[in-house]
Amino acid sequence: MNEFDLDLLRAERVGLDEALFCAGKTDGQVARIVETVAMAGRPMLLTRLDAARHASLEEATRSRLDYDPISRTAFLGARRPLRERARVAVVCAGTSDLGVSREAARTLEYYGEKVSEFNDVGVAGLHRLLGRIQEIRAHDIVIAVAGMDAALVSVLGGLVKAPVIAVPTSVGYGAARGGETALAASLASCAAGVTVVNIDNGFGAACAAMRILNRG
Amino acid sequence: MNEFDLDLLRAERVGLDEALFCAGKTDGQVARIVETVAMAGRPMLLTRLDAARHASLEEATRSRLDYDPISRTAFLGARRPLRERARVAVVCAGTSDLGVSREAARTLEYYGEKVSEFNDVGVAGLHRLLGRIQEIRAHDIVIAVAGMDAALVSVLGGLVKAPVIAVPTSVGYGAARGGETALAASLASCAAGVTVVNIDNGFGAACAAMRILNRG
Amino acid sequence: MNEFDLDLLRAERVGLDEALFCAGKTDGQVARIVETVAMAGRPMLLTRLDAARHASLEEATRSRLDYDPISRTAFLGARRPLRERARVAVVCAGTSDLGVSREAARTLEYYGEKVSEFNDVGVAGLHRLLGRIQEIRAHDIVIAVAGMDAALVSVLGGLVKAPVIAVPTSVGYGAARGGETALAASLASCAAGVTVVNIDNGFGAACAAMRILNRG
Amino acid sequence: MNEFDLDLLRAERVGLDEALFCAGKTDGQVARIVETVAMAGRPMLLTRLDAARHASLEEATRSRLDYDPISRTAFLGARRPLRERARVAVVCAGTSDLGVSREAARTLEYYGEKVSEFNDVGVAGLHRLLGRIQEIRAHDIVIAVAGMDAALVSVLGGLVKAPVIAVPTSVGYGAARGGETALAASLASCAAGVTVVNIDNGFGAACAAMRILNRG
Amino acid sequence: MNEFDLDLLRAERVGLDEALFCAGKTDGQVARIVETVAMAGRPMLLTRLDAARHASLEEATRSRLDYDPISRTAFLGARRPLRERARVAVVCAGTSDLGVSREAARTLEYYGEKVSEFNDVGVAGLHRLLGRIQEIRAHDIVIAVAGMDAALVSVLGGLVKAPVIAVPTSVGYGAARGGETALAASLASCAAGVTVVNIDNGFGAACAAMRILNRG
Amino acid sequence: MNEFDLDLLRAERVGLDEALFCAGKTDGQVARIVETVAMAGRPMLLTRLDAARHASLEEATRSRLDYDPISRTAFLGARRPLRERARVAVVCAGTSDLGVSREAARTLEYYGEKVSEFNDVGVAGLHRLLGRIQEIRAHDIVIAVAGMDAALVSVLGGLVKAPVIAVPTSVGYGAARGGETALAASLASCAAGVTVVNIDNGFGAACAAMRILNRG
Amino acid sequence: MNEFDLDLLRAERVGLDEALFCAGKTDGQVARIVETVAMAGRPMLLTRLDAARHASLEEATRSRLDYDPISRTAFLGARRPLRERARVAVVCAGTSDLGVSREAARTLEYYGEKVSEFNDVGVAGLHRLLGRIQEIRAHDIVIAVAGMDAALVSVLGGLVKAPVIAVPTSVGYGAARGGETALAASLASCAAGVTVVNIDNGFGAACAAMRILNRG
Amino acid sequence: MNEFDLDLLRAERVGLDEALFCAGKTDGQVARIVETVAMAGRPMLLTRLDAARHASLEEATRSRLDYDPISRTAFLGARRPLRERARVAVVCAGTSDLGVSREAARTLEYYGEKVSEFNDVGVAGLHRLLGRIQEIRAHDIVIAVAGMDAALVSVLGGLVKAPVIAVPTSVGYGAARGGETALAASLASCAAGVTVVNIDNGFGAACAAMRILNRG
Repeated sequence: MNEFDLDLLRAERVGLDEALFCAGKTDGQVARIVETVAMAGRPMLLTRLDAARHASLEEATRSRLDYDPISRTAFLGARRPLRERARVAVVCAGTSDLGVSREAARTLEYYGEKVSEFNDVGVAGLHRLLGRIQEIRAHDIVIAVAGMDAALVSVLGGLVKAPVIAVPTSVGYGAARGGETALAASLASCAAGVTVVNIDNGFGAACAAMRILNRG
Repeated sequence: MNEFDLDLLRAERVGLDEALFCAGKTDGQVARIVETVAMAGRPMLLTRLDAARHASLEEATRSRLDYDPISRTAFLGARRPLRERARVAVVCAGTSDLGVSREAARTLEYYGEKVSEFNDVGVAGLHRLLGRIQEIRAHDIVIAVAGMDAALVSVLGGLVKAPVIAVPTSVGYGAARGGETALAASLASCAAGVTVVNIDNGFGAACAAMRILNRG
Repeated sequence: MNEFDLDLLRAERVGLDEALFCAGKTDGQVARIVETVAMAGRPMLLTRLDAARHASLEEATRSRLDYDPISRTAFLGARRPLRERARVAVVCAGTSDLGVSREAARTLEYYGEKVSEFNDVGVAGLHRLLGRIQEIRAHDIVIAVAGMDAALVSVLGGLVKAPVIAVPTSVGYGAARGGETALAASLASCAAGVTVVNIDNGFGAACAAMRILNRG
Repeated sequence: MNEFDLDLLRAERVGLDEALFCAGKTDGQVARIVETVAMAGRPMLLTRLDAARHASLEEATRSRLDYDPISRTAFLGARRPLRERARVAVVCAGTSDLGVSREAARTLEYYGEKVSEFNDVGVAGLHRLLGRIQEIRAHDIVIAVAGMDAALVSVLGGLVKAPVIAVPTSVGYGAARGGETALAASLASCAAGVTVVNIDNGFGAACAAMRILNRG
Repeated sequence: MNEFDLDLLRAERVGLDEALFCAGKTDGQVARIVETVAMAGRPMLLTRLDAARHASLEEATRSRLDYDPISRTAFLGARRPLRERARVAVVCAGTSDLGVSREAARTLEYYGEKVSEFNDVGVAGLHRLLGRIQEIRAHDIVIAVAGMDAALVSVLGGLVKAPVIAVPTSVGYGAARGGETALAASLASCAAGVTVVNIDNGFGAACAAMRILNRG
Repeated sequence: MNEFDLDLLRAERVGLDEALFCAGKTDGQVARIVETVAMAGRPMLLTRLDAARHASLEEATRSRLDYDPISRTAFLGARRPLRERARVAVVCAGTSDLGVSREAARTLEYYGEKVSEFNDVGVAGLHRLLGRIQEIRAHDIVIAVAGMDAALVSVLGGLVKAPVIAVPTSVGYGAARGGETALAASLASCAAGVTVVNIDNGFGAACAAMRILNRG
Repeated sequence: MNEFDLDLLRAERVGLDEALFCAGKTDGQVARIVETVAMAGRPMLLTRLDAARHASLEEATRSRLDYDPISRTAFLGARRPLRERARVAVVCAGTSDLGVSREAARTLEYYGEKVSEFNDVGVAGLHRLLGRIQEIRAHDIVIAVAGMDAALVSVLGGLVKAPVIAVPTSVGYGAARGGETALAASLASCAAGVTVVNIDNGFGAACAAMRILNRG
Repeated sequence: MNEFDLDLLRAERVGLDEALFCAGKTDGQVARIVETVAMAGRPMLLTRLDAARHASLEEATRSRLDYDPISRTAFLGARRPLRERARVAVVCAGTSDLGVSREAARTLEYYGEKVSEFNDVGVAGLHRLLGRIQEIRAHDIVIAVAGMDAALVSVLGGLVKAPVIAVPTSVGYGAARGGETALAASLASCAAGVTVVNIDNGFGAACAAMRILNRG
């Protein structure tokens, strides 16, 4: 019986490396997987690695990792050089959503994409978004990160031609219902052709962007 | 045992007449209540009176009613003259929301308020709303009627000083969940100081506006 | 007061024409919008136009429409010629999901895309899907249409490099919860980078595909 | 990339200052925003600043704040003088709801409103409310704070003419569902013209009151 | 195989006759059960027998039944004489709840209880309830029938000593959620010692009252 | 493009024939599938074929089917002879659940299993169940069909050694929530080792039984 | 402004003392209320006072309290003598439900009722319940405490004549949904005339019993 | 009054020993039950005994237990010898699901079953599952353990003849909803004859397997 069976051919099959989602795994499992992949000389992205767990890793393991506490992501292996042009805009409604938008940005950087980040442009102060919309339009793909009512998603969807990938976040309380409202509002968006990923899934939005960018 | 007990002193107590919510009542109950109030020489607003039921009322009863099929409302008794200035703007996201926004407008008219209606200004085509925002700002109160993601509510809440009363509508399908998403999104709005009434409750929003207008 | 305010510049702004979602609108509203757009000499896609309503339209209006009863869509205006190569694969789990997958296909055809349809390839008979996977892989984008447990979404997401857009359907009963389970399962998919649109929203998936195809 | 982008013109646009919702932000973000606003010589209201976090702020930051632990609010900058007359009544059902009602009262005080608070007047002991109803009626606006079944909201709505803004609270257990029942009951209130804000959103109710008071 | 197996000893065991809940049974099943019980010379209460089905029963069957269309109940067999004193008060919030309150009253009458009915005493017009509270207090048991926010339940629970059995009704729309809000609000009532039965279950409330009255 | 792709090797792969779930398919689709399978000389079970649709099938198609209106099932092709001994007991709580329990029984008969049916043995009259428990114990598998609170499931699970497969039904109203309560209660059963299928899924329970019986 | 306003006349009005629900109140609030009531020379029941908080109370306060850690209740003031005969049976499904059933028993003891407790008689081992049913039948009222599927409620309801008050508990996991399943199952019980209180509300069930016992 | 009443005849009645579910019981209750059973010289399985509680047990008690921290299970009493042939395959989608799959395996081992475990074979990397499907087919029963979208359940159900018992797990976040999505997806599986147990209920799946294996 093996505890895990890494999917090392995933990149070939779907164009994306297998990543390690750390939440829900024990410290021992995380460490053993990192060691196994490192031994195989392969790169890997770790997500949902919170600061306390990162700090508790053995020094040998920790030294292999390029860690970012806001996004709770780590890179194992040498970083890919970044492209010159940012093809993806990550647009983030509020300061509280930064962990999620940074997860998207870091995942894209793992694949060598330079990312433009637009923060704190929620629609309660619409001028902030409108003032930057031309810049945003210069990108091939827009990732929209927003919690609560996720109104940013529809507004963006109505202002740009690019694919818009919505990431609802768990920011908010009460009727925000841990991100369920932002999720449902994004799905029911009045702007056509917006797609949606799971709550707080900045990683997934970035992978979806990579699937588009890998095309052609 | 009486089937009903009209609250004829309500206007004195809360500044609003008792209205007749027809859905859920039998044809007989609706007819008997209308007759009782008419006999008492009092005005009354009827809501949720759908066209089929209106058509099935006896001619004597029907002739007492000023009926509007879109809003499914009827006025019993002489109409109050309308004020010269529209103090309330009813802003409606889409054509499918018109029944609800008209219910709000008709309720206000019942109380003698002239109403400005702004239709089909959902945020998927933001220029439509922005092009009319100065007009909207000229009103004392804004009622925002929107279904699906209700993004209109937050956008409006960030653009006007007036009280904003959101009416989520049951328009939409799937993740719109019969208006629950618009309701939750309105409650979780990123714009401060927006208040919310029940799904499709144009009547309630108008009553809330009257409570404000009746002040001082 | 206008009942509707068509967003005729939408194509310029987001690369997609405004479409007419017929459900929730009255017969009169649908007819008036069709006439207005026809008068303006513009094409339009109508969705959720069920057969009974289509049949009840006036002959003059009906004669303007190219109607398909399975997808409940209609084209107003001359059809665009189709591309030679199908860039989008619409993969459909079961016969009961056909209305939704056809809505996606028809929307793409409205924009001139030739579509490859793969029907009845749900994972309960996995060989059917595996037998056609090479064909599916030849497309730039995959739209996966599935109800109930939507297992097709994850399986496809793990087998192709292309962007996968999931359309959960309301097919099923009991724990299928009108499509909510397929929706949640698609969002929680174990395959990375899958994106999701609203339940039964074949139109939205096609629009999302067009946003990708319009790129570059 | 900036972590935040303060909306300093909000007061001009909507008549309300941007406030800082501390929950969901890191200690560093809270401190940096407070410093930025203080440097700009502007006042700000902080909400959901719990006592532990307040205590952990650096002395320099903490000394700028007028903190209240029950409401978890803090004022940055000089306090506005209070009006002589209390225009708003904050009516609170039970002792457990005090944190929320105090948040409403403190927000109003931030804007210079004197507030009358009526505590522990839940309808299980109706005489307590009836004994104070004349006092309550002397106010321009009533904020009703209640958890569990929120019956206070309907009772108040039927007894006063003023605008009634309901704040459902997360007090209770089991079928109280973290405030969802109080929220739904307030929205479905049998008293006409009551409006509702999010669960535990004393701040939002006060902002809604300010929108009304800022009128005319 | 038998289609049904009547529990003719139920009265002995639990003090209540087996009743026939007609909804969900076919016309044939209802008719065959009525005939079987009639043949056995036993009385039976039928509930949820709507008028259309009642009308479609064969004359022979229908002639055995004492039918009431508002409560949708029928008595099979001779009526028991009513007690002189009404021991149970059935208090009903609004006209739309009458079907449910009548079901409770009819069930009690089936068992020979005289019932006092108090209708249209919802708390939005509190004086109506307060004006009759002394009368209500003269009963041994109070059944409170209310939909929407069910505020009547808490108010009554705080005003009487008797057992209060709440029957939430499915009256209302939107956030009333088909009676779920009235149900949850009744369960979370701030008045101690109130008990609750299923939505629209006037029959069950009456049975619960009979269990109490059968005591001692 | 084919509308359907029958999985004719399913029996070989999983030991069960592909069945035709008629709900959600159009009349045309049902008829074409039946014809295709009949042409191939194969048997097939049809489920959820309601009486109206059955009656509307063309005579040629209808004549091929052995139809049962209570279970809404039909057999295409010659019936398999039944085993001598009933290996499965289908235990049904109430008369309203019969459609579902009959679906289970008919599915088993399709595969040649003789079935013992125990009807109307809900736990509100526990003696009915206890009086037949020895008979039930004589079977290899027990299918328990119950709606509302599904208490029958736990009681049976604690009284027999055999595998117990629970089929929650949508019988009931209000808090029964269309079968969700029976489903959740069955899953949370205090009796160990009970398994559960979807609401109203008599067919699925029978298939599960066949998987067990096909073993060894 | 007062933080609380005790309802000292509640006993007179509804026959029950106001009790102190400690959860959701601060330590200071609990202590101040206890002191106020003690000063007034009145008895009071405290509920949801967990052991840690009890231990942290000042010695002076703690010495006034008769505390029971399992039920998390405390009596303030002299205990009432217990009646000779137990009129209430508290029947508890499993060991994990004991905290709730003890809360019911302690509340009854506060009012001077002797209580018979029947523990660990869940229906998965039906013989345990049946072996004690004659004893249970000797009581005037039965309180049934059960979590998970709450099958005990229906079984008891079908076996006794007395009023049955169900207390669903939050025991269980997954589909038990924190007591929601037990709650819904109790409400949808197939046994007629069972009433229900909130999840884990042993106190409320006891109060309901007292309302019955106080009668006549 | 006894705190617990062990069901020592359960094995005789249902073929399974009573097990001790430790979560929700106090340390004292767990210890006392273990001692009681040990004194009676009987074996017992303990589930949901987390490592911290295990460590805090008194040495005397702890020494009686054969504890496994991953599955959080312990055996009391001598282990039964394992059969030579593994009759059950436990198939686990991901590393995070191991705690649940191990609970199933350990429960089977408690009853003397040898178990084959197949780990990390989720469908996002379908080749891993397909590569081992022949091995899996060699077993009499398949237990499928999967969280998130639980697509593994349908894929397996379509590939094997054996009974498939699905155990949805609480692994995942957002739309995974603590296992509710995996649960609903398993119930709505497109593969016929799959049965389901509660979320994370590896124990229950093993008991269901034992009921099957105990047959004949």
